Amino acid sequence: MNNFTFYSPTYFVFGKGKEDDAGHYVKRFGGTKVLLHYGSGSVIRSGLLDRVKKSLEKEGLSFLELGGVKPNPRSGLVYEGIELCKKNNVDFILAIGGGSAIDSAKAIAAGAKYEGDFWDFYVDTPIKDALKVGTILTIAAAGSEGSGDSVITKEEGMIKRGASSEYYRPVFSILNPELTQTLPAYQTACGAADIMAHVFERYFTNTQDVEVTDRLCEAILLTMIKEVPKAIKNPDDYQARANIMWAGMVAHNNIVGVGREQDWASHSIEHELSAVYDCAHGAGLAVIFPAWMKYVMHQDINRFAQASVRVWGCNMDFAHPEVTAAEGIERFKNFLSSIGLPVNFKELGADAKDITVLVDKLGLGENGTTGNFVKLTSKDAEEIYRIAAE
Amino acid sequence: MNNFTFYSPTYFVFGKGKEDDAGHYVKRFGGTKVLLHYGSGSVIRSGLLDRVKKSLEKEGLSFLELGGVKPNPRSGLVYEGIELCKKNNVDFILAIGGGSAIDSAKAIAAGAKYEGDFWDFYVDTPIKDALKVGTILTIAAAGSEGSGDSVITKEEGMIKRGASSEYYRPVFSILNPELTQTLPAYQTACGAADIMAHVFERYFTNTQDVEVTDRLCEAILLTMIKEVPKAIKNPDDYQARANIMWAGMVAHNNIVGVGREQDWASHSIEHELSAVYDCAHGAGLAVIFPAWMKYVMHQDINRFAQASVRVWGCNMDFAHPEVTAAEGIERFKNFLSSIGLPVNFKELGADAKDITVLVDKLGLGENGTTGNFVKLTSKDAEEIYRIAAE
Repeated sequence: MNNFTFYSPTYFVFGKGKEDDAGHYVKRFGGTKVLLHYGSGSVIRSGLLDRVKKSLEKEGLSFLELGGVKPNPRSGLVYEGIELCKKNNVDFILAIGGGSAIDSAKAIAAGAKYEGDFWDFYVDTPIKDALKVGTILTIAAAGSEGSGDSVITKEEGMIKRGASSEYYRPVFSILNPELTQTLPAYQTACGAADIMAHVFERYFTNTQDVEVTDRLCEAILLTMIKEVPKAIKNPDDYQARANIMWAGMVAHNNIVGVGREQDWASHSIEHELSAVYDCAHGAGLAVIFPAWMKYVMHQDINRFAQASVRVWGCNMDFAHPEVTAAEGIERFKNFLSSIGLPVNFKELGADAKDITVLVDKLGLGENGTTGNFVKLTSKDAEEIYRIAAE
Repeated sequence: MNNFTFYSPTYFVFGKGKEDDAGHYVKRFGGTKVLLHYGSGSVIRSGLLDRVKKSLEKEGLSFLELGGVKPNPRSGLVYEGIELCKKNNVDFILAIGGGSAIDSAKAIAAGAKYEGDFWDFYVDTPIKDALKVGTILTIAAAGSEGSGDSVITKEEGMIKRGASSEYYRPVFSILNPELTQTLPAYQTACGAADIMAHVFERYFTNTQDVEVTDRLCEAILLTMIKEVPKAIKNPDDYQARANIMWAGMVAHNNIVGVGREQDWASHSIEHELSAVYDCAHGAGLAVIFPAWMKYVMHQDINRFAQASVRVWGCNMDFAHPEVTAAEGIERFKNFLSSIGLPVNFKELGADAKDITVLVDKLGLGENGTTGNFVKLTSKDAEEIYRIAAE
């Protein structure tokens, strides 16, 4: 196990109706002037936004609004939010939505406390201050409600990049599984793929002797395998939604990933797919992750066999562990298909002809690499896109 | 799943040599005048105390010392610590040791900010303020390094009681597995029993549909079953120590227990054993927990069978699930024995003749109960002590 630090200071409020306490928590964590940041019309149509406003009013908090966050959130709206915050002395950003609204809110929070261009943070500048961010989560997927991460897409060239900081940990997050019951099956499945990918990015590691985090990773995956089909079949299944929602947080606040090298190649390879085709991140991951697994499994056949046995319930083929390893990847792919996700380029609406463009946008150049389990070059990434296109 | 809040804002610093950064973290979290609180001579003999002092001096922090914490920490030393803090304007308590030093430090921290008798907190008064507490952990066991709990024994009548509060969450905890490599096998095993008990207290619940926390509980138990025998056999096994140490934190900061009714009868029944015989808490748990399991398993045979299959690797007897349930309990008992722990009164040095005294001290009276999975009366507790005495 490697040395590590772990810091997850977010106050999680989980359960039915908890969004009505938003004002209470904004106040508790020192907010006085709030920017409400959200995405599409569903937050308005469902009445959620009104309920949150009432809750803020009840606590005597003043607020501004900035809606319009899109999936794969854009820098344009972030700049707009930063200006709004600076002009109006906003001291708290309350994101209502999924990973996109939350990631956008985090970028605004850091940008509002910075003189330069917020995009600096998504290149290489460390974040040194930020407004406080709270969240009301409406989709179990990105894990941004508990993580210190944010991913933003710059319109110029559709460049998608991430930034991480302790300042990006929300001070509170309200998780009400009821709010996810209205999600269409496809979005539910995309969220599930994202959650499982967050675990697998941590699971496939070269670090030895990490049984505790191996087991924690497997716990989340086993939960997803049991609960997701229930939520797809019956969107109103509160208990399935609740299990998935908490699993989504645990999958990405890093409690299951400490002390080990993590990979993250599949995320970076996928980012170009969703940047180019504007597909759901989870759908792109469903296409890329099994392809990545096939390509890298020989790096550690026993680790893949372990996943097959412990997560996918395969019987170990002791004479041919590579058979067991491959069987687990196949079961993963079948699982993704069974919940309605695309598992190849065609099903995603991507085109193998674009692979050169995708590899080019990935920006590894001649000597760059992505990932850690296997350090992948441009050539490797191209192969993975090709496997995904099959 | 029940509604819940989860708040674990402790900054965890994990790995080799990290105690040398203690001063840095005290400063980061606002400490200026520190009370060093610790137990026995081993902290001094090993040179740990000196290294910590040097680290504080390096940061220009002034400090006082209060050693002498005993296992099952006593109120007498807490009163002494409170007076020291008040007299010297201490603003930060740094506990060096295991659960006893940390629990004692928490009690001092709350008492130092209170005009009344700190014992009030261990009866029914909510804690409204406390000095900040940091910890340097030297034994994986109590989980106090990440929890909001503290257990203190009042000398008058040897009454052992717990208190919980958000103010009891340490602001930072340094976990260096190397510091646990000098622990004798018996103490290592006692710590392991405590960690596993913290999980089982959460696992046996009447709350339905809690797959995510079931799986997380099982993850910690599976880790312990694999790693503890390695640390017993080879105390210098850093990797085993590291896995156990992190498992001990995760087992008790409540990430594996949210959203479900928890039990805690075995802890309360055990507390009287360690109060009367001054035995190690973990040893008492090794005697009580399997007895409790046998007594209550018919409350939910399938849940016990699930533990047997998923945690202990039993084959499910579908025609007779109660056989599988009982088999898991037997394997748990055998596991505890195999790592050198007592599993009955005789092995613990307790006497069945004292059962009346133990039941009396438990203080349930005629109508009181303890636990939630099954609400146990004095009569039930007596039966459990009797099973444990067999």
